[in-house]
Amino acid sequence: MIQSIIRELPEKVRPYLELGKVADYIPALSVIAPDKFGIAVTTVDGKTCYSGDSREKFSVQSIVKVFSLVFAIRCVGDRIWEHVGRKLTTKAFNAITPIEEAEGIPRNPFTNGGAMVIVDMLLSHDRNFTQNLLTFIHKLTGNSFIAYDFSVAESEKLTGHRNAAIAQFLKSYHILKNDVDDVLTAYFCLCSLSMSCEDLSRALLFLANRGLDPLTESQIISSQQCRRVNAILMMFGTYEASGDFVFRIGLPGKSGVGGGISVIVPRKYSITVWSPPLDEFGTSVAGLKALEFLTEQTDLSIL
Amino acid sequence: MIQSIIRELPEKVRPYLELGKVADYIPALSVIAPDKFGIAVTTVDGKTCYSGDSREKFSVQSIVKVFSLVFAIRCVGDRIWEHVGRKLTTKAFNAITPIEEAEGIPRNPFTNGGAMVIVDMLLSHDRNFTQNLLTFIHKLTGNSFIAYDFSVAESEKLTGHRNAAIAQFLKSYHILKNDVDDVLTAYFCLCSLSMSCEDLSRALLFLANRGLDPLTESQIISSQQCRRVNAILMMFGTYEASGDFVFRIGLPGKSGVGGGISVIVPRKYSITVWSPPLDEFGTSVAGLKALEFLTEQTDLSIL
Amino acid sequence: MIQSIIRELPEKVRPYLELGKVADYIPALSVIAPDKFGIAVTTVDGKTCYSGDSREKFSVQSIVKVFSLVFAIRCVGDRIWEHVGRKLTTKAFNAITPIEEAEGIPRNPFTNGGAMVIVDMLLSHDRNFTQNLLTFIHKLTGNSFIAYDFSVAESEKLTGHRNAAIAQFLKSYHILKNDVDDVLTAYFCLCSLSMSCEDLSRALLFLANRGLDPLTESQIISSQQCRRVNAILMMFGTYEASGDFVFRIGLPGKSGVGGGISVIVPRKYSITVWSPPLDEFGTSVAGLKALEFLTEQTDLSIL
Amino acid sequence: MIQSIIRELPEKVRPYLELGKVADYIPALSVIAPDKFGIAVTTVDGKTCYSGDSREKFSVQSIVKVFSLVFAIRCVGDRIWEHVGRKLTTKAFNAITPIEEAEGIPRNPFTNGGAMVIVDMLLSHDRNFTQNLLTFIHKLTGNSFIAYDFSVAESEKLTGHRNAAIAQFLKSYHILKNDVDDVLTAYFCLCSLSMSCEDLSRALLFLANRGLDPLTESQIISSQQCRRVNAILMMFGTYEASGDFVFRIGLPGKSGVGGGISVIVPRKYSITVWSPPLDEFGTSVAGLKALEFLTEQTDLSIL
Repeated sequence: MIQSIIRELPEKVRPYLELGKVADYIPALSVIAPDKFGIAVTTVDGKTCYSGDSREKFSVQSIVKVFSLVFAIRCVGDRIWEHVGRKLTTKAFNAITPIEEAEGIPRNPFTNGGAMVIVDMLLSHDRNFTQNLLTFIHKLTGNSFIAYDFSVAESEKLTGHRNAAIAQFLKSYHILKNDVDDVLTAYFCLCSLSMSCEDLSRALLFLANRGLDPLTESQIISSQQCRRVNAILMMFGTYEASGDFVFRIGLPGKSGVGGGISVIVPRKYSITVWSPPLDEFGTSVAGLKALEFLTEQTDLSIL
Repeated sequence: MIQSIIRELPEKVRPYLELGKVADYIPALSVIAPDKFGIAVTTVDGKTCYSGDSREKFSVQSIVKVFSLVFAIRCVGDRIWEHVGRKLTTKAFNAITPIEEAEGIPRNPFTNGGAMVIVDMLLSHDRNFTQNLLTFIHKLTGNSFIAYDFSVAESEKLTGHRNAAIAQFLKSYHILKNDVDDVLTAYFCLCSLSMSCEDLSRALLFLANRGLDPLTESQIISSQQCRRVNAILMMFGTYEASGDFVFRIGLPGKSGVGGGISVIVPRKYSITVWSPPLDEFGTSVAGLKALEFLTEQTDLSIL
Repeated sequence: MIQSIIRELPEKVRPYLELGKVADYIPALSVIAPDKFGIAVTTVDGKTCYSGDSREKFSVQSIVKVFSLVFAIRCVGDRIWEHVGRKLTTKAFNAITPIEEAEGIPRNPFTNGGAMVIVDMLLSHDRNFTQNLLTFIHKLTGNSFIAYDFSVAESEKLTGHRNAAIAQFLKSYHILKNDVDDVLTAYFCLCSLSMSCEDLSRALLFLANRGLDPLTESQIISSQQCRRVNAILMMFGTYEASGDFVFRIGLPGKSGVGGGISVIVPRKYSITVWSPPLDEFGTSVAGLKALEFLTEQTDLSIL
Repeated sequence: MIQSIIRELPEKVRPYLELGKVADYIPALSVIAPDKFGIAVTTVDGKTCYSGDSREKFSVQSIVKVFSLVFAIRCVGDRIWEHVGRKLTTKAFNAITPIEEAEGIPRNPFTNGGAMVIVDMLLSHDRNFTQNLLTFIHKLTGNSFIAYDFSVAESEKLTGHRNAAIAQFLKSYHILKNDVDDVLTAYFCLCSLSMSCEDLSRALLFLANRGLDPLTESQIISSQQCRRVNAILMMFGTYEASGDFVFRIGLPGKSGVGGGISVIVPRKYSITVWSPPLDEFGTSVAGLKALEFLTEQTDLSIL
């Protein structure tokens, strides 16, 4: 049944494509066609189903924070919580006020500041981690053509004064151990990762299966770590809009300003939807609507 | 297996009883013995299991906000969202700053201000709603001895200047339609509700079963409404500590300063744990620890 | 020369009368004719000059905070600083957020919360202080017809939920020693004080003369205390707009939502101007403009 | 009489030298001997009087913001108010939260962000303005040995991540027109200006004389502009501590984290005091105490 719902989604969400606005603060992203829509679902027993532009690569942006968090948990374990909180936020992903209020500690790993702290830890662990993280993603997806898009990274570096402000601010509190410029370069590199809905839904399947990739039988993270990563997706995945996201969708998920949203249905599915026009919180309007249709018509909510 | 874990919990949490502090801002609550601990689990197929002081009544305090929210959904439906948000909070349950920032709109139904808005709506719907809400709880539990504790309500009314400030503040924004004093009287009355772990775990069972009480086969709220109430418990149930609560427990839950915590395991259980000493966020220290033991040793997390 | 400038002011400020809005949150104030304008200047050698509606009584509202502060300094001295700060504010006079941020301590004596703390101290000192403060003002002005306007006080009490919230909030921090209702009754009584421009300019003359009333030769407060009261007027007298007020006028002054502004020209004059329509900060638009004309054409600024 | 008071000050403030802490966030400043104290007074009729280390040069730091403000008023006039406010602040000079709250507009010209906006305007007006500002100061003082201390500027540039964050943040709001690095280089250059108490007190004498330097008879800024600059000193000169500063001193003044405080006594004196140990607001402890002694024993307050 889910297949027929998925197949109808591109048609059903069409009216919503006009309600959002493609991110324009990163010049390289602002040129994306606003009428794109794709969705891909991968089941824990290895089936896939998709429709629309599900094979077109897009800039994953903040969705990469899920990979860097998982990679950091594998590399440095619970030490990641020394310099980043597990606190809700009521401000935007790129807000700097909450960092000042907490004297340098980003509220959680999915704010931009929190993700930079994770990047900094990974840099301290391995100067070449961006390449190794890419290899990790190649293994997760079986697709070794996935790559960073350096034109996007460059574009963001030139105009990313707000992220530069956040990195300098963290450095002023001695939270970052590495050079500000190195952290920013790695951060923008990660955000430029280019993947399709099918890639993302495949890559994150282990989060729907207690940390074990069901197809390769590789234990990516432990069952407890997996529960915790999903908790972080649920509580912080769409920043200050997480309350409303869970109210509407009932699932852990992570949005990116490239228009992607990846959600996890524990024990069942990994889903990624993509449509570039965003709402005021940086979440894809049609993507969110598609997830709402899907959860209303099926029994996917875990609540 | 869960039975044997439950049975061992009173012993296992004993060391944690000393780490919290019994609420002292309501005089009538400050006299509770700090070494109490009880837990009760009710399954959707009607079995129960409990240990410790699971039959002793305690002041449910903010846990009543779950009942008043459900009652309001039944009475006034989606109109409840006109005057209360679904937004995360980074401040304490009795903070007034977030209300001023949002020009009178409480962030969510579980902050004190949000609960007062719900009370106000219920008062407008039915002047006598506190009595009818009690009858509703009698039906949910099959226990008609459950009652408000007027000595607690009186005690809180005399010293509840902070809640009085919140009510006056909401009134200044014309958010409350009824008399401030009437709203406060009803609010303090609700909070004084006295129930045991077994009562609470029984009463909230419908939230583990898509809104249908499995034992009476009465549909309390719709399946979609049930998902949404659970979403609200998950995101806002322990206020600014919700991020960490879900990280540790992985379940929707609601705390009260009387020391109770009620959690829902969708499709499986309704659980209530009670122990009076609280952490800085107003959550029972030993109660939270017990839930952590329970979820670590079983597979209760939904994530 | 100042006389001719003063005489021309009613004509010059006429175009500005339309730019403000008469306070409407106190019903009894909202009925005032919006085209009123008066000004009175009293010199330290006893001359007076005035024009417009300078003899018409109006509700002094927050200007009374100058009298209650001076009265408190006389009654309890430096102890007033134990429960009220000398801190700038960036929020409105009736904001509650700054009180929560400072855990109950109002930022300065001219915020509503700060003025309530002063009222509370005066109540503790003398249950009957409102009457004695009135007698004090009778002596300062030589006009024993000055009185509180109980219809205004009643009107504000009925609708003053925001001030009630502030008082309850201060009480929750144990900052107020007296009953909340007593403090509010006294506070609203004070704010209802009805005086004319001539009354106010005469009454505050001692602040232009190092604390000594030059006409009665009575030392109201010491020279040092006088400097400090003027400092408080300069820094906090128009709340968050004080920075711009001093930029434009260069003098210590206090506004009230009744439309009055009293300013002190140390060693020279006491000036009160009145016009009901207010700007967004609760300052009389035409009154502020009149003071700007006056200070531009004379050499009254002390800077 | 003032001469004898001045002469006794180094002895009188000695006990206060230990109560502060020399700024340590700029490495080059942290090595200053903490027992330095100097004061210099210049009268509008050209007399000077001084004691202690009044001829020793120190890093003026934020006091330079007075010169850059005056220079900007001369160069670009009232346009400076397009991108910087005249609002009080309740946060530290290097806080970033108030900038986010105002969507990029610094609260006033004396916060670090506000001073950077002034620097940016000056850079747009004249790429070489730092050199020309120095020439301006040479003329004001008649001392052409005054110079920037490039070792201090370098030291601050290497460690000034917080100021870099502020500049990047302003740039993200398009408030800065020039390259972030150019603005920071010029800003740190200005702050490194090295002057003695005698230099500073001489240089700012025009502010005590309606904008006219009484010794060279050069009109530096107009009388109205002078009143406004003094208003800015009075309201914002010691940041969030300005309320208490004016309460204690009753004069417009500007502090710097190098330990200097310059105050203006309109129509009479320009005073600079210097002592490196600072209080929590970045104001010289002994310097503030010295000014308090001075104003208590003389009649210098303008209030």
